[in-house]
Amino acid sequence: MSSELEAIYSAIDQNIEEHVGRILRLISQPSIAAQNIGMRECAELVRQLFLEAGCRRAEVYDTPGQPVVYGELECGAPVTLGVYMMYDVKQVEGQKWTLVEDPFKPRVVEMPPFKRVIVGRGAVNSKGPMQAFLNAVREAMRVTGGRLPVNLRFIAEGEEEISSPNLYGFVSSHKELFEGCSAVIMPFAAQDTRGEVSLHLGCKGVFEFELECSGESWGRGPTRSEIHSSYAPIVESPVWRLIRALCTMKADPQDPERVTVEGFYESVAAPTEEELGMMRTLASRLDFEAIKQSLGVKVFWRNLEGGVDTLVKLLYEPTLNIQGIHGGYTGPGFMTILPNRVSVKLEVRLVPNMEAGEVLAKIRRHLDTHGYQDIRVTATDDDFGRKVGEKWAKVDPKAPIVSAAIEAYRELGYDPQVWPRLAGTAPIHVFTNPPLRLPLVIFGLGHGGRAHAPDEYYVLDDTGKVKGLAAAEKSFVKLLYKAAEKYGKQPQKQA
Amino acid sequence: MSSELEAIYSAIDQNIEEHVGRILRLISQPSIAAQNIGMRECAELVRQLFLEAGCRRAEVYDTPGQPVVYGELECGAPVTLGVYMMYDVKQVEGQKWTLVEDPFKPRVVEMPPFKRVIVGRGAVNSKGPMQAFLNAVREAMRVTGGRLPVNLRFIAEGEEEISSPNLYGFVSSHKELFEGCSAVIMPFAAQDTRGEVSLHLGCKGVFEFELECSGESWGRGPTRSEIHSSYAPIVESPVWRLIRALCTMKADPQDPERVTVEGFYESVAAPTEEELGMMRTLASRLDFEAIKQSLGVKVFWRNLEGGVDTLVKLLYEPTLNIQGIHGGYTGPGFMTILPNRVSVKLEVRLVPNMEAGEVLAKIRRHLDTHGYQDIRVTATDDDFGRKVGEKWAKVDPKAPIVSAAIEAYRELGYDPQVWPRLAGTAPIHVFTNPPLRLPLVIFGLGHGGRAHAPDEYYVLDDTGKVKGLAAAEKSFVKLLYKAAEKYGKQPQKQA
Repeated sequence: MSSELEAIYSAIDQNIEEHVGRILRLISQPSIAAQNIGMRECAELVRQLFLEAGCRRAEVYDTPGQPVVYGELECGAPVTLGVYMMYDVKQVEGQKWTLVEDPFKPRVVEMPPFKRVIVGRGAVNSKGPMQAFLNAVREAMRVTGGRLPVNLRFIAEGEEEISSPNLYGFVSSHKELFEGCSAVIMPFAAQDTRGEVSLHLGCKGVFEFELECSGESWGRGPTRSEIHSSYAPIVESPVWRLIRALCTMKADPQDPERVTVEGFYESVAAPTEEELGMMRTLASRLDFEAIKQSLGVKVFWRNLEGGVDTLVKLLYEPTLNIQGIHGGYTGPGFMTILPNRVSVKLEVRLVPNMEAGEVLAKIRRHLDTHGYQDIRVTATDDDFGRKVGEKWAKVDPKAPIVSAAIEAYRELGYDPQVWPRLAGTAPIHVFTNPPLRLPLVIFGLGHGGRAHAPDEYYVLDDTGKVKGLAAAEKSFVKLLYKAAEKYGKQPQKQA
Repeated sequence: MSSELEAIYSAIDQNIEEHVGRILRLISQPSIAAQNIGMRECAELVRQLFLEAGCRRAEVYDTPGQPVVYGELECGAPVTLGVYMMYDVKQVEGQKWTLVEDPFKPRVVEMPPFKRVIVGRGAVNSKGPMQAFLNAVREAMRVTGGRLPVNLRFIAEGEEEISSPNLYGFVSSHKELFEGCSAVIMPFAAQDTRGEVSLHLGCKGVFEFELECSGESWGRGPTRSEIHSSYAPIVESPVWRLIRALCTMKADPQDPERVTVEGFYESVAAPTEEELGMMRTLASRLDFEAIKQSLGVKVFWRNLEGGVDTLVKLLYEPTLNIQGIHGGYTGPGFMTILPNRVSVKLEVRLVPNMEAGEVLAKIRRHLDTHGYQDIRVTATDDDFGRKVGEKWAKVDPKAPIVSAAIEAYRELGYDPQVWPRLAGTAPIHVFTNPPLRLPLVIFGLGHGGRAHAPDEYYVLDDTGKVKGLAAAEKSFVKLLYKAAEKYGKQPQKQA
């Protein structure tokens, strides 16, 4: 097998310029879900890419939103893995790109310290790593004559950037497509600027909601429109009212960040001993000063100095964050008005074992019992109580795919930082929850940056510890072989 | 004198179409102080109008802002009155006018129930009434051969719509221009849609300020820019902080509208017996339901039902109003960010004997003692402690100009609603305060509407109790003769 790997690696090196061209082609096809631009075309292209990689069957499935593309790569192997990808990208409007004229006409440029990077929308998030994975599989299929040690089931969604509203529905009603799968891989560029590699065993969930206070629904204050502020002594203000309502939601004078919505924290699970152990190791390896610096933050909450406490708070605490607030006159100068409405966008990050619908109901109940029955709560998707936001996900640290990933990284010379979870959110729960119940790892050498921002890039050449495209592709091959080894020894799981 | 008045009235009637033309001409000259459009041209035009009305001397004075126009109409009369005017108008950008294509190309149109109205920017606020007054004086000067019973001192400012930042400075350093004046008149269209006439004995003051909370000045939270909201557990939020700070400023659970900034109410003067009497009469005449309806307000504060209590609150209570609040992501949908700054625009309406600089200092002290030293306070004009906002003004109800105005209205068939003050603000203090110490009345029959809004109008024809242009002009003449009578009996006041 070692010589087989060597042969695949060598094919990758030999064809790497063609591989670069394939990434450029994929980026050149715009696919902005939020604006419904190029989605169908990109889905068709992805289907083509699946066929080129070696799938015999590849299909575009309709959903209530953007299509899902499915590909089946059958090698007669005893082990089968799912591969989760996304083919949509973030909007570019209003952004000033300096290294390309058009974010969808990607270019290969120098970006010190990196000799060659691809610049374009989706370069790292995530068309670069996605195509890198497909390149790797294609070379591996050619070299092995279609006898990879794992079968693959590709699924690419087109709505990741708009929080995957239809992915779970698709997966749970097409679970037969994942029959026999043992685990799921999401190809990624997991190295930071210093070349450090991270592995996250799940993530937080999230839901977003808006509170609106208006004279109209309150029955007090101005209803139709703003009024002249000289009436303020006898006409009440929806803006002051919303501010009072918000204050009741974080009303602990001893700890102004604590959420005082009744029951908010009641389902929060403390870290296990195993997770605490992971965070101890992690804390000893992280440079918290560098994290502060990159965020532009002088001090952490309550002057936490990094270390395990900081990680426990970051990863195990739910939040009630204000994304934005807006009401009345906000232009230059002043305007003597008494506004008739104001709204605030909030977001709750969910940790195990919180459930979005329950938390939202608690917030509604909190407002009601505090006398704010009129304040309107509108949740993400406007879909109260049914499907709200994204669920948290837990990946068992003992899952063979986790060991496979860690060992693959180590054999490639990298000792990954293992995080018990991601502080952010990804649609991992779609696979870890019933009906599939599959562990998922986000994996891959390689580095890129400025996701969602102008001049998004993906590194092509090795630079110090940061690996370029060829090494990223080899890491994917390595993982597939490692996973085959791990799951080959196990009694096989059936979905 | 009665036959002299008759002759003037008849001249007004005879030349009324020419008078309409003069109003159209004045409106056609844009004069937007906020955007510095047409100001110098309009000042020159006003100087011309003063000369046409009969002034022998008329001058444009420079100020640090827009010019002030002064005109001296000398009739050798024993009584001299000041006439305050404004020649600037509000911006029109972003407004949808439907009755004219260009707000500075005014037209005479039908606007039921009014047969003819002038539509254009400044029609009622206040080029229409201003020119009406000048028309009246011109006819009166012609009919009397330049022997009006009062001398007039015109002053027209070009910055009323940007809160008269230079008027007081000009007046107090040119008090010789007002030598011998007994009172000041501001021509206005004082009738509402039902023809009711109001007279206000002064006004509230106002100052506006912005509070800004940022990670930069706080030293906590994100400093450079917003950050990804997944860091919310360990990075504090300037938005929640500002909300907490605002809550301390209205923190009385029994009365959520009461301002709890220490000393906020300490200089507030209660109404005198005389003022209470005025409000009793006023309350019996006002239709509070109609006021609610026109404001789009279902209930007043604490369900006040109109009457004296409502008027006392409206006119004698200072306010801390939020004009607008703005921070973080406020576009459509959601955005997982933790904002680095937020700001809120507030305004305080001042009643006697409050002083803007003192109140602002109390607000600063309040923030400091509550631990919000970092929250930035920026007041109107960015001129902390020196000149902040507009002062309140009191006009003595016993001033002869007040009786002259009331009697003039009564003899014209209108019993005016006399308000102890205006709930809003006008630059009345410029004249009532030292060095001038002159009472001022805002006076005139006539009606117009939609000031600052699209399709601003000024009524030309009598419609029920609402009077048109000719009657408005006659009311001005009437007031001048009444004032001459009142002040003629008095020992003369010297400025």
